[in-house]
Amino acid sequence: MSIVIFLDFVGVTLFAVTGALVASRKQLDIIGFIFLAMVTGTGGGTVRDLILGVPVFWVEQPLFILVCTVAAVLTFFIAHFLESRYLWLLWLDAVALAAYAVFGAYKGLLVTGSPVIAVVMGVLTGGLGGVFRDILASEPSVLMRKDIYLAAAMVGGLIYVGILGAGVDQFVAAGLGFILAFLTRSGALAYG
Amino acid sequence: MSIVIFLDFVGVTLFAVTGALVASRKQLDIIGFIFLAMVTGTGGGTVRDLILGVPVFWVEQPLFILVCTVAAVLTFFIAHFLESRYLWLLWLDAVALAAYAVFGAYKGLLVTGSPVIAVVMGVLTGGLGGVFRDILASEPSVLMRKDIYLAAAMVGGLIYVGILGAGVDQFVAAGLGFILAFLTRSGALAYG
Amino acid sequence: MSIVIFLDFVGVTLFAVTGALVASRKQLDIIGFIFLAMVTGTGGGTVRDLILGVPVFWVEQPLFILVCTVAAVLTFFIAHFLESRYLWLLWLDAVALAAYAVFGAYKGLLVTGSPVIAVVMGVLTGGLGGVFRDILASEPSVLMRKDIYLAAAMVGGLIYVGILGAGVDQFVAAGLGFILAFLTRSGALAYG
Repeated sequence: MSIVIFLDFVGVTLFAVTGALVASRKQLDIIGFIFLAMVTGTGGGTVRDLILGVPVFWVEQPLFILVCTVAAVLTFFIAHFLESRYLWLLWLDAVALAAYAVFGAYKGLLVTGSPVIAVVMGVLTGGLGGVFRDILASEPSVLMRKDIYLAAAMVGGLIYVGILGAGVDQFVAAGLGFILAFLTRSGALAYG
Repeated sequence: MSIVIFLDFVGVTLFAVTGALVASRKQLDIIGFIFLAMVTGTGGGTVRDLILGVPVFWVEQPLFILVCTVAAVLTFFIAHFLESRYLWLLWLDAVALAAYAVFGAYKGLLVTGSPVIAVVMGVLTGGLGGVFRDILASEPSVLMRKDIYLAAAMVGGLIYVGILGAGVDQFVAAGLGFILAFLTRSGALAYG
Repeated sequence: MSIVIFLDFVGVTLFAVTGALVASRKQLDIIGFIFLAMVTGTGGGTVRDLILGVPVFWVEQPLFILVCTVAAVLTFFIAHFLESRYLWLLWLDAVALAAYAVFGAYKGLLVTGSPVIAVVMGVLTGGLGGVFRDILASEPSVLMRKDIYLAAAMVGGLIYVGILGAGVDQFVAAGLGFILAFLTRSGALAYG
């Protein structure tokens, strides 16, 4: 399995878990968990694919729907054992954001060949799932609360595209993009 | 006229009326009525068609725009004679949800052949119009108020796909899907 | 440069500036400025292109991304010198709305040939950028505050399509559409 496929699964799965954690904080029933997990897990990638004009990933691979559903159901049973659902939400969201921003940049570059579009797609893919989650849950959108959020996604895309453009291989570019995006977001969480 | 075409018109028309009823509750002018009717009537189906990668239904059939406009204008003149706009809103929304969820599942199955995608499309088609309506009207999204909402759409899609998969004909599958989705939602309204 | 290309740039650029002005009112950092400028500047046109089934304009022409970014950065440095950011926001938004509604109607007509779809696309193109901006900034959507907003976009599209249909040339049709849409919105602002 290549690193980008891995980052794709990490992004979708962990975003789905954050959606389910919000459902838990809002005391929704299990269908609410599944719906918020699905929208958060697939939202950013869906808009990315629509804008790129390629088939939407989860229509081609319904496996992703199963992944989000399982993530929602497991979270439904586990969430109330967690000490701080909000802290889990923030940190899992940070990992998901970093992973999915790099994957978005990868797919944007693959489809259009333009580094500029690639970075924008990284920000959209990484950022929109969380934005949709917050709008649906009637919370102030993630953008308003902590805008270093989108900056971290941009860092991931820029590092990935930059290193790849310098001729370094996919694994290193994606790995470094992920790590630096995560560190950017972590820094904001830890010292923000 | 086949039953699915009928459910499509019922879904679009009644959702449009619920959008106009919200416009009435918010005391908007007639353009506000038309806009909310259009977004609510066509929103779920538009996202469904975009995700399925097929032409958007009302671009192919501008008749649907006329339908939403007429529904909005009639509601504009009638709404203030109604005793409880909110009750009308809830019950018309329940019929629209049931009808449009089954139609969404039908179209999802037709385009992708996947029962899983069909059920997801039923939920999206049935549920998103109401979600858009509430977000635009700055009300807490329907999801947060009563999540049995989406469960009812899921019931409609599951019953339709299941019965059809068992070899029963379209009319019975769609009819039963509609009735059971409506009963699920009605139960929540009556005893919720 | 044809008048419609000019209206396209005016619409995207000024909407981007209004997004950045909202970012300024919300005291976001520069990434927040860029993000809100991008969503407001490209949002309406993106939905228009998706629904029309044509390539999204800024994926084909990444220049528009640069335009929105420059608009955001300039606004970032200039906004705090303005006496009333809110008045600037309202009036620039009025010009953008009028310009972009006519361009949306032009593109809708070009792609589908249907005057009805053209007018709807004018309203969507002109109106959705502002709606997205307000939802993301957690403000009551523009629709709820002043619904003459969408009526002005509709006026622009109707005039453009009507005059063009009467056999008058593009420049006059687009120019009059723009002017009358702007006057409609201005009237609402000045006397509303």
